[in-house]
Amino acid sequence: MNNYSTKTIPRATAKRLPLYLRNLTILHSKGIVRIKSKEFSKITQVPPATIRRDFSYLGELGRSGYGYEVGFLIKVFSELLDSYEENRIAIVGFGNLGKALANNNFRRNQNLTIDCVFDTDPAIVGQTVGGFYVYSMADFEKVVREKNIKTAISTVPSEYAQEAIDIVVHSGITAILNFAPDRVEVPDSVSMRYIDLTTELLTLLFFDRNYKKPSLVATS
Amino acid sequence: MNNYSTKTIPRATAKRLPLYLRNLTILHSKGIVRIKSKEFSKITQVPPATIRRDFSYLGELGRSGYGYEVGFLIKVFSELLDSYEENRIAIVGFGNLGKALANNNFRRNQNLTIDCVFDTDPAIVGQTVGGFYVYSMADFEKVVREKNIKTAISTVPSEYAQEAIDIVVHSGITAILNFAPDRVEVPDSVSMRYIDLTTELLTLLFFDRNYKKPSLVATS
Repeated sequence: MNNYSTKTIPRATAKRLPLYLRNLTILHSKGIVRIKSKEFSKITQVPPATIRRDFSYLGELGRSGYGYEVGFLIKVFSELLDSYEENRIAIVGFGNLGKALANNNFRRNQNLTIDCVFDTDPAIVGQTVGGFYVYSMADFEKVVREKNIKTAISTVPSEYAQEAIDIVVHSGITAILNFAPDRVEVPDSVSMRYIDLTTELLTLLFFDRNYKKPSLVATS
Repeated sequence: MNNYSTKTIPRATAKRLPLYLRNLTILHSKGIVRIKSKEFSKITQVPPATIRRDFSYLGELGRSGYGYEVGFLIKVFSELLDSYEENRIAIVGFGNLGKALANNNFRRNQNLTIDCVFDTDPAIVGQTVGGFYVYSMADFEKVVREKNIKTAISTVPSEYAQEAIDIVVHSGITAILNFAPDRVEVPDSVSMRYIDLTTELLTLLFFDRNYKKPSLVATS
């Protein structure tokens, strides 16, 4: 594991870690080894004082007036964000998007594995498609409890999302990545993250129209 | 169009609009009609003073001590973010992800249309797949210039992304949504936005492990 207790990091700071990490990775790829909070602020749009405070929670990672070591920050933030535990994932909805996810299977990260896929379509349930046996949603709870799976990705369209997510939640899954942007109800014990591709595209177009050139990475 | 000049909004403010909009939409769906900057700060993790300053650029949208009208803010932010122009889009890479995007085709927004799709795979080039004629990447420039398309979505894997994006950029496309997370080089005149699904999943798992319950929507 690592030496940084995530429990001591305020949640507001934790939420900025992925943003920091992505921008630091870009800097690293450009050969930049050190960066000051003021410069990093211009890239991330996070105020310099907030950056310094955020970084201070991680211990002696940098010195004022001298800048932060990009490589070291990447290492620490990666360790914080990475899981170190194997995360086996169930895909709910095995259409084109489900297949794309299963085929890609998060190969960049060896701890993330799509373990099993589910659908309601009689044409594919019980068949092996793209190397994955397609389970029926009727068997969702049984299968994920047997496999002790705690993470799911839903590609179910909005109109059926609540119904599918109810089954997922009832089966003991605690973390859900949802590709349908409409909000669904889940208990407080379940973590939900939405991927809204329409808003991503609109944001790109908004910046393309109004703000040449956009920042290095998305911040929202 | 609308009455709010986007040119007067600082870029840092503009970058927060999608985050504001998504959270306001959730509040609206919960029946909340009015919100104060301090409450909205808890949801968005943006400091209240920053929220008040951001909102002040949009004119007389709210009164201090009284709160902001959720519905009105949604209307204004949607208008700002939305394009009002038809945006026809070229898909680069027509595998499962390309097909998923084409099939979904941003139906939530009538101004976004996937117009044409491209691939290099001889097995599908020149064929009609899922209702789309698959053009060869060799014809990319010719086709998008004829159609006057300025927006592309790339689903090309990282190892081929730079090569594909070079063709896209050379063809006069100015906005690119890229599903390969590794950075590619583009001129300053091109807007690029990355969707990194591995980082999205890691962020979900990070919050699931450390911060029950995560905020309503992602902020990074």
